[in-house]
Amino acid sequence: MRSDYPWTASPFIVSAPMAKIAMPKLAVAVSKAGGIGFIAAGYHSDHLEDLLEEAENLLEGDEGTPPTVERCTTETPNPKFVPVGVGFITWSASLEKTLPTFTRYCPAAVWLFAPPKDFRDLIPWANKIREATAGRTKIWVQVGGVADAAKVVETIHPDVIVVQGLDAGGHSLARGASIVPLVPEIRDKLLELCPTPERRPDILAAGGISDCRGVAAAMALGAQGCVLGTRFLASPEAMIARGYQRALLDACDGGVSTVRTSIYDKVRDIHGWPEAYDGRGLKNKTFSDHVGGLSEVRNRELYREELNRGDEGYGPDGRLTTYAGTGVGLIRDVAPAGDIVKSLRDGARRILRGEYRTKL
Amino acid sequence: MRSDYPWTASPFIVSAPMAKIAMPKLAVAVSKAGGIGFIAAGYHSDHLEDLLEEAENLLEGDEGTPPTVERCTTETPNPKFVPVGVGFITWSASLEKTLPTFTRYCPAAVWLFAPPKDFRDLIPWANKIREATAGRTKIWVQVGGVADAAKVVETIHPDVIVVQGLDAGGHSLARGASIVPLVPEIRDKLLELCPTPERRPDILAAGGISDCRGVAAAMALGAQGCVLGTRFLASPEAMIARGYQRALLDACDGGVSTVRTSIYDKVRDIHGWPEAYDGRGLKNKTFSDHVGGLSEVRNRELYREELNRGDEGYGPDGRLTTYAGTGVGLIRDVAPAGDIVKSLRDGARRILRGEYRTKL
Repeated sequence: MRSDYPWTASPFIVSAPMAKIAMPKLAVAVSKAGGIGFIAAGYHSDHLEDLLEEAENLLEGDEGTPPTVERCTTETPNPKFVPVGVGFITWSASLEKTLPTFTRYCPAAVWLFAPPKDFRDLIPWANKIREATAGRTKIWVQVGGVADAAKVVETIHPDVIVVQGLDAGGHSLARGASIVPLVPEIRDKLLELCPTPERRPDILAAGGISDCRGVAAAMALGAQGCVLGTRFLASPEAMIARGYQRALLDACDGGVSTVRTSIYDKVRDIHGWPEAYDGRGLKNKTFSDHVGGLSEVRNRELYREELNRGDEGYGPDGRLTTYAGTGVGLIRDVAPAGDIVKSLRDGARRILRGEYRTKL
Repeated sequence: MRSDYPWTASPFIVSAPMAKIAMPKLAVAVSKAGGIGFIAAGYHSDHLEDLLEEAENLLEGDEGTPPTVERCTTETPNPKFVPVGVGFITWSASLEKTLPTFTRYCPAAVWLFAPPKDFRDLIPWANKIREATAGRTKIWVQVGGVADAAKVVETIHPDVIVVQGLDAGGHSLARGASIVPLVPEIRDKLLELCPTPERRPDILAAGGISDCRGVAAAMALGAQGCVLGTRFLASPEAMIARGYQRALLDACDGGVSTVRTSIYDKVRDIHGWPEAYDGRGLKNKTFSDHVGGLSEVRNRELYREELNRGDEGYGPDGRLTTYAGTGVGLIRDVAPAGDIVKSLRDGARRILRGEYRTKL
């Protein structure tokens, strides 16, 4: 992997493209620390060009910054290379609208998530982005199952497969397994489908990982690195309400304090997610009232009223959506994103080198 | 841990007490290979004495057998020590009925699962078994959450906490997290509650682990070893129908091919599980008909008819209950239980020593 992202170090630490939250500041901080930061293009991609411009400005003139020197080899005038990734919710986002931005900015990677119907819907995304950037923007595809991974590899030939387990916060498949069985089974499948190492996609594990122990575990399972979302929500670089961050720090026992549901979308008038998906968030009044039989219409009204409470609207007695993974209980401080990257990487290395290990 | 189970080696490999399936042959094979095998006393415990007698016979006169020499220090005449564990479904099993068996056979460990209402229900189990065996039978308690683990540690002072994630096959909490966040968060909680290492319970991880990569991951997360159920179903020592085993080998993509449900109990007239529990098994006709609206009464009738089909009644088009965890796709052969133990242990050691590891 490192040759595609020469500023990075192993294990690869990636910040997830969390809609509305993962903006250039967070992505750049993660890439600067030797990870790969993602900007969320999210449901729409109207401001993607501005976001990449902002990322470039944040990177420029700063010592110890990932190299932006290597340029795209397309014939477009003045192509750049921005060492961050961009994530799309593909059932909603527009490929055509964003293609010129790829040509102009050439982000390091594009992360394709949640096609409207079938993974084949992603073929044009992969082909046209490759074409627009002469292959410089690497294609990452997120999956949550083994058959899906095989389908993606056979049709899209991605550079990276993001394997998301059902511990993950925010949107993912409503049903499935954790990374514990998923990563090794997908790894075996890739060995079978792509016997040549050069053509084999790398695997990044996502879901439930909050500290260096999770990173080390993912490596032991066969991943080349990890994607973390919830952990980076607790960084000053995340675009996130203080009430949201406080609720994350207060939460523990994530298997109990979070839940997978679609009500957190519905109260915010977000519609259109393919049926197989829902989102994991901290349990709050929106959820308990929903379970208690409150109508969606009334729940939405109460949600809108709650918005006026600002930071007070978060937490178990609040109503505002607080997406978080089951690893939320391991997050006990707000830390700079770059420090998070380094501590995950250094800690995982220590574990894998045996320093923490039970004597065998 | 090793001082309590001197025949074992690290990482600790344990075969789960799977009701009706984990009988003396399997438990003894696992313990003989340096793991800890469990016999399922299950819902009732009528034949526990016979089972421990059988285990002892299997152990006796065999070279390279775990030591049974150290005897209980109770005053009961001729107390033995059987180097296997015994597992109870405590909402259903009777403590009083089985206590004399503990005094007589002194199994290495007792595994307490699913109290009727509260973990405090397990206090008499722990106290009386400790008393009956002068503390030689170690107390293991299974939990699926951080708060539960804290409660158990504070009230029961167990020797081992089995941390079961929601990838697990068979019965477990219907909702929760995988071992990825559970093991480290529970580990941190134990460090806080039991600052003295000697008084701190060991952690064994369960759920979704099928090969050495899962074992290594669990160690990286902070566990002292692993419990495997589904993997040992595919051993000749398991008391299991061939059709069941074949269905396991045929299954892959366990997050998709298995499901958590209570219908697999209901069609077999098993009632009484506390509300928080259900079971994970391979999807089959019983499940799809249930989702399709078939009445429980009719589903049960069809189940009974299906029993006549024997081995043919298993698989996606069958109706017979086939409990399995999400790691089922990693199981590709039936192997002797002792070989499974050794390959898990040796493989995990290799990974943890860095032989398989991506170059850091």
